[in-house]
Amino acid sequence: MRFLEEMLGSFGALEEIRALPIRWDRERFRFWLQQDYPFVEALYRYVVGLLAEAPQAHRIPLVHTLLATVEELDWLLAQGADPKAPVHPVRQEYVDLLAEMGALAYPYRLVFLYLLNRLFLEAWNAHVEGDGPWQELSEHWSAPEFQAVLFDLEVMAQGQLPHLDPQVVAHYLGRILEMEKKTWSLLL
Amino acid sequence: MRFLEEMLGSFGALEEIRALPIRWDRERFRFWLQQDYPFVEALYRYVVGLLAEAPQAHRIPLVHTLLATVEELDWLLAQGADPKAPVHPVRQEYVDLLAEMGALAYPYRLVFLYLLNRLFLEAWNAHVEGDGPWQELSEHWSAPEFQAVLFDLEVMAQGQLPHLDPQVVAHYLGRILEMEKKTWSLLL
Repeated sequence: MRFLEEMLGSFGALEEIRALPIRWDRERFRFWLQQDYPFVEALYRYVVGLLAEAPQAHRIPLVHTLLATVEELDWLLAQGADPKAPVHPVRQEYVDLLAEMGALAYPYRLVFLYLLNRLFLEAWNAHVEGDGPWQELSEHWSAPEFQAVLFDLEVMAQGQLPHLDPQVVAHYLGRILEMEKKTWSLLL
Repeated sequence: MRFLEEMLGSFGALEEIRALPIRWDRERFRFWLQQDYPFVEALYRYVVGLLAEAPQAHRIPLVHTLLATVEELDWLLAQGADPKAPVHPVRQEYVDLLAEMGALAYPYRLVFLYLLNRLFLEAWNAHVEGDGPWQELSEHWSAPEFQAVLFDLEVMAQGQLPHLDPQVVAHYLGRILEMEKKTWSLLL
């Protein structure tokens, strides 16, 4: 968490996202998973783009990250997500942001991949609880294997800091936080 | 093996490769592994290119194929391969062929990925034996996990057959076989 907190600096947006009075239930979960599909598909493409440029030392954690997105897509399909369903404008905006960030230099893309994952998990842990079909996903994300991949991504992201312009990072981090807030607000 | 044999049709090249009087020893293995590095690096890029276009149902076996190339690169490095060493012209020719095939349509690239892997393994099994530092690699390729990935690739490749022009397949298969023969002939 230290790295994330340093990057967030003066951004209060994570606290705002955590504090959203989300009403989480089976109906909202169905909406969430349908809208998660196009986002995870975009994330898959984003990670493939990273793998195309990754040095050998970064590849294993990135391949495991890619595998996690493929497994999540399978899981969403098994839960009834329809890949051809219309995409909510808020999700489309996030998908477009990912595509835009996919054109940045490798060090930025790697750092944002870590931050995206970390922010999402912080919000998920703050809002998702109780019994339901989402437990399998919660268990997946809290499993030691996935935590180990996240830890590797964090170490790799920290290694990129000397190559980053803090203003560029702040710009995109602000937009990622805005998209996370908008996305979670769909469940109010 | 049926699929491979059908694709090979009138090509006698696999038998020729199997019949090469290779002298396999530690010295030749050192040469082989150094020259294998740039080829596996090219194969890594080839598989990343496939993942960029793969439908969801193809992604898990392709991610596992990618993971196998990353692990092989790590293994080659651990055995002393130098990523900056000069590349033998024969290996460079094979690397260039992979890059050329990387521009083909997805169904061809998928079929050739399977055929490349299969042909290599047929040749490896015919030529590599005895005790030595290569046993770990032999065990990796004969492990049930890798055999399962190859089986998945074969099924996926067979599913592409209706989309292929047999003349294009024959052209590239001929060139792949030529490169395999040239590569193994470096060990005579």
